[in-house]
Amino acid sequence: MPSTIIGIDPGTLNTGYAVIVAKQRGWGVQDLGVIRLRASLAYEQRIVLLHDKIAEILAANRPQRAVLEKVFHGLNAASAIKLGELRGAVLVALHRANVEMGNITNITPAQAKQYITGNGRASKLQVSQAVSSLFNLRLTDAPADATDALALAATAVNSWFG
Amino acid sequence: MPSTIIGIDPGTLNTGYAVIVAKQRGWGVQDLGVIRLRASLAYEQRIVLLHDKIAEILAANRPQRAVLEKVFHGLNAASAIKLGELRGAVLVALHRANVEMGNITNITPAQAKQYITGNGRASKLQVSQAVSSLFNLRLTDAPADATDALALAATAVNSWFG
Repeated sequence: MPSTIIGIDPGTLNTGYAVIVAKQRGWGVQDLGVIRLRASLAYEQRIVLLHDKIAEILAANRPQRAVLEKVFHGLNAASAIKLGELRGAVLVALHRANVEMGNITNITPAQAKQYITGNGRASKLQVSQAVSSLFNLRLTDAPADATDALALAATAVNSWFG
Repeated sequence: MPSTIIGIDPGTLNTGYAVIVAKQRGWGVQDLGVIRLRASLAYEQRIVLLHDKIAEILAANRPQRAVLEKVFHGLNAASAIKLGELRGAVLVALHRANVEMGNITNITPAQAKQYITGNGRASKLQVSQAVSSLFNLRLTDAPADATDALALAATAVNSWFG
């Protein structure tokens, strides 16, 4: 069973990530944070900077599996291309860090909220409180993008091994 | 003035590319081809494979500038995300090959057709014949995806230095 999983929620400005590791009982949080890309940077710069930052996090944590948030609804073509560009950059970083593409899954925000809180339309605060409880940590002051990524990782663990 | 430019037309199955180099008079074709991604591969596999193939072409040709085809119209969100993922993978390959993001431009199919043939709605055959003439080469048997990429590169040269 893989011991380390990264959840990544790619965004055009803020990308949340969370790395969880298998413990004797359940899973623990190994790394958690937000990559912030300045809006003043040209968009192409943000894409490759995201690649570089994700690559650093992967080198430090060495996950075997990854889960990405995937949004399908409410996007126009221009926004969807931008989101896709971020996803492509993240996939290349995972590939270069030897995460097999077959070990990557995509989860929608509603799927993560449903699993974590029991409500597919839960608020960010509700998600944060639920993951705090799930991992037995005080995460209510962590950025919502980071706790969202943690919710993704927990949801993926459940879908893989639950 | 940069001496080597790559044009790339990313596609979910076939990605055309063309590398042109400055000569004493005008520009010559240094490399031209199509990267084919098997439809039987999982989409994430195709994305990272495209990165790897583009990286090989960049290592062999060492361009200083790049032009990508960018489609904005007629895409639904799912197709736009897929195209964006390919673009993100290509941008990371360019970044890793030391092509500065400020030296990358995006050109629409209509812009390239307009410059190359004088008609923004030209057929693929018309584009192929026009680039054959422009570079004084017999390219009519080359794959359309490759000659499209060559048209992109020529259009970019004109917009940068024309």
